[in-house]
Amino acid sequence: MNKIKYGLIGASGKMGKEIISLMNENENELVFKYDIDGESFSEKPEVLIDFSLPAVLGKTIEYALKFKSPLIIGTTGFNEVQLKQIREFSEKIPVVQSYNFSVGMQMLIQSAVLLKEKLTDWDIEISEIHHRFKKDKPSGTAIMIKNALGREVNISSLRLGNVAGEHSVSFGGLGETLTITHSALSRRTFAEGVLRAVKFIVDKEKGFYTIKDVLDKEQ
Amino acid sequence: MNKIKYGLIGASGKMGKEIISLMNENENELVFKYDIDGESFSEKPEVLIDFSLPAVLGKTIEYALKFKSPLIIGTTGFNEVQLKQIREFSEKIPVVQSYNFSVGMQMLIQSAVLLKEKLTDWDIEISEIHHRFKKDKPSGTAIMIKNALGREVNISSLRLGNVAGEHSVSFGGLGETLTITHSALSRRTFAEGVLRAVKFIVDKEKGFYTIKDVLDKEQ
Amino acid sequence: MNKIKYGLIGASGKMGKEIISLMNENENELVFKYDIDGESFSEKPEVLIDFSLPAVLGKTIEYALKFKSPLIIGTTGFNEVQLKQIREFSEKIPVVQSYNFSVGMQMLIQSAVLLKEKLTDWDIEISEIHHRFKKDKPSGTAIMIKNALGREVNISSLRLGNVAGEHSVSFGGLGETLTITHSALSRRTFAEGVLRAVKFIVDKEKGFYTIKDVLDKEQ
Amino acid sequence: MNKIKYGLIGASGKMGKEIISLMNENENELVFKYDIDGESFSEKPEVLIDFSLPAVLGKTIEYALKFKSPLIIGTTGFNEVQLKQIREFSEKIPVVQSYNFSVGMQMLIQSAVLLKEKLTDWDIEISEIHHRFKKDKPSGTAIMIKNALGREVNISSLRLGNVAGEHSVSFGGLGETLTITHSALSRRTFAEGVLRAVKFIVDKEKGFYTIKDVLDKEQ
Repeated sequence: MNKIKYGLIGASGKMGKEIISLMNENENELVFKYDIDGESFSEKPEVLIDFSLPAVLGKTIEYALKFKSPLIIGTTGFNEVQLKQIREFSEKIPVVQSYNFSVGMQMLIQSAVLLKEKLTDWDIEISEIHHRFKKDKPSGTAIMIKNALGREVNISSLRLGNVAGEHSVSFGGLGETLTITHSALSRRTFAEGVLRAVKFIVDKEKGFYTIKDVLDKEQ
Repeated sequence: MNKIKYGLIGASGKMGKEIISLMNENENELVFKYDIDGESFSEKPEVLIDFSLPAVLGKTIEYALKFKSPLIIGTTGFNEVQLKQIREFSEKIPVVQSYNFSVGMQMLIQSAVLLKEKLTDWDIEISEIHHRFKKDKPSGTAIMIKNALGREVNISSLRLGNVAGEHSVSFGGLGETLTITHSALSRRTFAEGVLRAVKFIVDKEKGFYTIKDVLDKEQ
Repeated sequence: MNKIKYGLIGASGKMGKEIISLMNENENELVFKYDIDGESFSEKPEVLIDFSLPAVLGKTIEYALKFKSPLIIGTTGFNEVQLKQIREFSEKIPVVQSYNFSVGMQMLIQSAVLLKEKLTDWDIEISEIHHRFKKDKPSGTAIMIKNALGREVNISSLRLGNVAGEHSVSFGGLGETLTITHSALSRRTFAEGVLRAVKFIVDKEKGFYTIKDVLDKEQ
Repeated sequence: MNKIKYGLIGASGKMGKEIISLMNENENELVFKYDIDGESFSEKPEVLIDFSLPAVLGKTIEYALKFKSPLIIGTTGFNEVQLKQIREFSEKIPVVQSYNFSVGMQMLIQSAVLLKEKLTDWDIEISEIHHRFKKDKPSGTAIMIKNALGREVNISSLRLGNVAGEHSVSFGGLGETLTITHSALSRRTFAEGVLRAVKFIVDKEKGFYTIKDVLDKEQ
């Protein structure tokens, strides 16, 4: 991959810093940023990344239109109206949007769906462990897993110290069990997913994509 | 240990069969049994074991008095009045009573209490996995662990296939986690605890004991 | 499924007993058996099952030819010549052969292969836990997993008490880990795989199949 | 605790930076440092901390004597001669020395020793998971656990991505298993142990201590 010039909305946030660090290691160049301290512009970005807040969405769309640059959105907590707005926007500009950019989590979901389809009479349980500061319970990712399974599944939520994020899907038959567990060691893992999405979207025309499309395309 | 002559109330139940099998391997002799099919007596037992139902307690006490034999009670689900009745009875005849005769479970509790006392500002979570047929949720053992910790602790209960019983206590600090997990592979483990209790109580005079007393004495 | 009349070679072994128990629950009828105590025949079986020893293979093939009955082979430890003999035999009579009839284990392998293909730069580790009486180390199943991954992978083998069999495949990237763990709760799980294979093969003409074919066909 | 003025040898290393960060949060003051870039002195430290290399030991002892400041040593890889040198030195100046300053790891060891003493006929297995960059195998901490158990125990070492450090001690009886697992989420956990050691040693006269003494004293 050639060096990519990118813009970042939410540059001063925890994920913003992680993304800058990884993009830098891979010799990409931050040419535009926008955050709580204002705007900083040196050149038109080839890709625009947004890890900020739902309230910033209008501004993000404005910038993406102005730069005509593909957009990657990792911000969480959008309402239905905003999600629809992103979909509509993707008819003009290519968008990758996901609540979890971890590659491993997408693979956990693919595996769990595979198991669910074959082990039709087994029980399924989801459990997740997060740090004590997390406010939502169950986690958004646990709900995402449950939705992917398309079945009513119990979710157990544990809150422990400073755990970055662990999700398990357990299957139980009468003589055996199968459990898939994903652990995020740090935020870097999410930044890596963003980098994959950048490589994926930089030369797309338009359309709505998820991290799953990114991974499927890589194969 | 010499060969012990024992009696068994609830001999035809799942735990009853498991106890007979293990006692037999260790060359002890079943000289009295009582269950749904009635009574069978060949000789006065040196120890009486009860794994039956709360409703049978009166009968059990009657037999123990008649035989003047130390009593081991593994039946679960007693109410407060019955528990008091057992305590009072132990002033005449020695009794070991517990809701879980697994040695490993007692060790899990001892370890968890040790950790709780030293890791005062860590979070604690209990989780348990049992087979899909289990009716109570959380398990009695999980509640026993919580009571031993003497702190308000969240319990997560998973129901999966045919899992015999798995209990975990997790501790989480800001930079690390510690988890103790106990798995019962089969009912044999509970029978082994009963055998230890038999050896412990066979020459006691009177008094109320738990499986913890049994283990502490062995050291 | 209609009631099936089956034959069993190795009927008095641990797996043999487990198979009889499950086949019985499902109202199938044992019409022929062969084991260390000799032969017992009441009727020609529709399916022949072999969980015995490699040395018995000649006898097994002889019976299958005589009865013209599809064959399920769960015996382990065959050498290359014997494996070739089974393949050749399957050109006349349909055969399902596998070293592990657990459905969950096959699903673990499918999931692990899926993950391996997508997570190309992640590390992989296999670990297995078995009872202290197990003589081979690593387990045959661990080797089977490694072969399916088609990559040089380290295998850690733990020997603990009476564990029936636990296998894990762990994947580690720079920011996250994924682990799939399979636990056999008892031998019943393997008997269930045999029952599935019986249903699969009873009306086949000829050909060589594995437990994977059985599962794929069920979908 | 009052604000403490401390010195740090190995200040520019990974652990050095983590210690500075935590000491700073707790309003302690770095008044002396020594590392690959040389020496920087503003005031005599009340405590001296060393997380550097074995080869630096002579220099460390020189500084501690000069400052007459209690010493905390977290450097690993000392040979027998150096360990003896530290012991002898502690007859003049108080020293806390350990290969692992994590509080949770010390508690894992205490729990494992407790279990080992009571579960005399159970099998024991140690396993550890670390990042792919780790050069030693098994880890020093795994060896420390084994030494504490005082028994010949198998150690399984897995190398996976970027795992900070996970150690398990598993116990297996014929009907049950017990596993204690410690996970370091980050290096911060080791810095927290250092801070506890600082508070412990700041007003000691002389003597050799380990992190276990630090924890026991806190109770």
